[in-house]
Amino acid sequence: MSRRLVLAAAQLGPIQKAEGRDVAVGRMVRLMETAHRRGAEVVVFPELALTTFFPRWYHEHLAEADHWYETALPSNATAPLFEAARKFNIGFHLGYAERTPEGRRFNTAVYVHPSGEVVLKYRKVHLPGHAEYDPTRTVQHLEKRYFEVGDLGFPVVRAPVGEAQVNIGMMICNDRRWPEAWRVLGLQQVELVMLGYNTPSLNMENRGFEAHHLRVFHSHLSIQAGCYQNACFAAGVAKAGDEDGHELFGHSIIVNPQGEIMAQATSWGDELIVADCDLGMCELGRQTIFNFAAHRRVEAYGRITGQTGSAAPAEWVPKG
Amino acid sequence: MSRRLVLAAAQLGPIQKAEGRDVAVGRMVRLMETAHRRGAEVVVFPELALTTFFPRWYHEHLAEADHWYETALPSNATAPLFEAARKFNIGFHLGYAERTPEGRRFNTAVYVHPSGEVVLKYRKVHLPGHAEYDPTRTVQHLEKRYFEVGDLGFPVVRAPVGEAQVNIGMMICNDRRWPEAWRVLGLQQVELVMLGYNTPSLNMENRGFEAHHLRVFHSHLSIQAGCYQNACFAAGVAKAGDEDGHELFGHSIIVNPQGEIMAQATSWGDELIVADCDLGMCELGRQTIFNFAAHRRVEAYGRITGQTGSAAPAEWVPKG
Repeated sequence: MSRRLVLAAAQLGPIQKAEGRDVAVGRMVRLMETAHRRGAEVVVFPELALTTFFPRWYHEHLAEADHWYETALPSNATAPLFEAARKFNIGFHLGYAERTPEGRRFNTAVYVHPSGEVVLKYRKVHLPGHAEYDPTRTVQHLEKRYFEVGDLGFPVVRAPVGEAQVNIGMMICNDRRWPEAWRVLGLQQVELVMLGYNTPSLNMENRGFEAHHLRVFHSHLSIQAGCYQNACFAAGVAKAGDEDGHELFGHSIIVNPQGEIMAQATSWGDELIVADCDLGMCELGRQTIFNFAAHRRVEAYGRITGQTGSAAPAEWVPKG
Repeated sequence: MSRRLVLAAAQLGPIQKAEGRDVAVGRMVRLMETAHRRGAEVVVFPELALTTFFPRWYHEHLAEADHWYETALPSNATAPLFEAARKFNIGFHLGYAERTPEGRRFNTAVYVHPSGEVVLKYRKVHLPGHAEYDPTRTVQHLEKRYFEVGDLGFPVVRAPVGEAQVNIGMMICNDRRWPEAWRVLGLQQVELVMLGYNTPSLNMENRGFEAHHLRVFHSHLSIQAGCYQNACFAAGVAKAGDEDGHELFGHSIIVNPQGEIMAQATSWGDELIVADCDLGMCELGRQTIFNFAAHRRVEAYGRITGQTGSAAPAEWVPKG
């Protein structure tokens, strides 16, 4: 059975607040066509790929934000993506805002088989930002207002991607900074993490030390460490550029199980990057340094699940 | 109260198998004197700093290895370190092989106050390698033979270092590759991680993909990610160079809470690097992106403590 996969990450340039889904979907279909011409078997699109990053905009009443959410997939607006998948025989990963029939709201991603069937759905667990309007911030980051915490855990499924069977998992944006998310996927033998993000070029809570130039470094550092420590590939895919005056830093990457960057987007626009992934590379880490069964010591990890926040340590009392 | 600390990492060049502790201790005292002249308030020495990295040498009977272990601290051999600490008013971190009165064996580190009192002891949790002689390996890595798994967890204590009160934690060598170790320290508000290592320039289990040039990258990646994701400083301090034909890669570093390398050793010998650490830098991460109480979701982390090894995921079954 094949253990090779041609993986494409499809960075999207900015989507302005006033633009309809048809604009974004048209651009995405063109990227799928490019991916097909490059021989890719799967395309990974960013978080909230159909609209602008709307959690920067405050609505007093949640219902006023309803137009940012999808209530069905496919819909009239998103059908062209499913048609392109069939036409090009290419799977795709899509991030979008989900509103359920019960009115629940999630920051969601799906992996869609070329047949159009949803293989895996994930709802974002680590929501950054805040729930109420914050007058001290020049830009709001209202993910905790617009979304519930994901209720699906971090699922992994073994499914066909191109000609290979691949253990697929997902993260969304801020999840990538949390080693817990990577490890829960690693404990399910994930081989490919699909990860979309919308990350501003400035820390909007900037209270001092975090410089502009560290933002991309932190994103890459987290993805590279996650891949190395869990012996998996990842496609970290950005929405990039200037959305109504708000800059997103782009720098989408594909990373291998050694933590090396195999491909990187260097524009702030729509850009496809492709890497030829040998899934057999996941084995070295799993069999040696990161043989979890041989080396993990769960009896020393109790705090990780036993407490949410940090606790101050005891003070040393000298005997002398 | 001061929140500044002048931190020194004292890399050691090789210690040959035939060399006595007096050689290593003499070199360490000279490094402490240099640290004092540079204004350092604490010196971090590597793992197993008093001897060669003996787990590469096989003994059929454990008792034959007794001479590699310390049974008391200070001892005649290590007394000069304690004297230098008092003389220079400088704290020090020391890694050594510990044999207890009950005959238990651990890979241990201590932080010693300038007064000579041991402030914190840690026993290595993540032991790499194997317990029995492995004829398929050209070089043995018998840590699982010579040491028990540490029984002290990952303790943190708030203690004086120079003029500051600092939340101190420790790791030893392979621990740094495990994000669980970093997080357990982070959940105790660690501000400074003291971390010694002896790491070969080649993966001795090399079965294919891990190139020589990735070894330092993986070490730095793990330390930088650990510091960023837990908003702490670390001194990662190597034994370096050629020990009886076995190359250790050196590249000791001091890292800040943004994951940036502040200082790096560039020789394979005894080398002191120093950094001026503003402990207030730990606050930004703790109050924003890595505000654990606000953002961690322990209900999604169950596998981290609930299972040791990985489990294969379910296969996707298409509906169509």
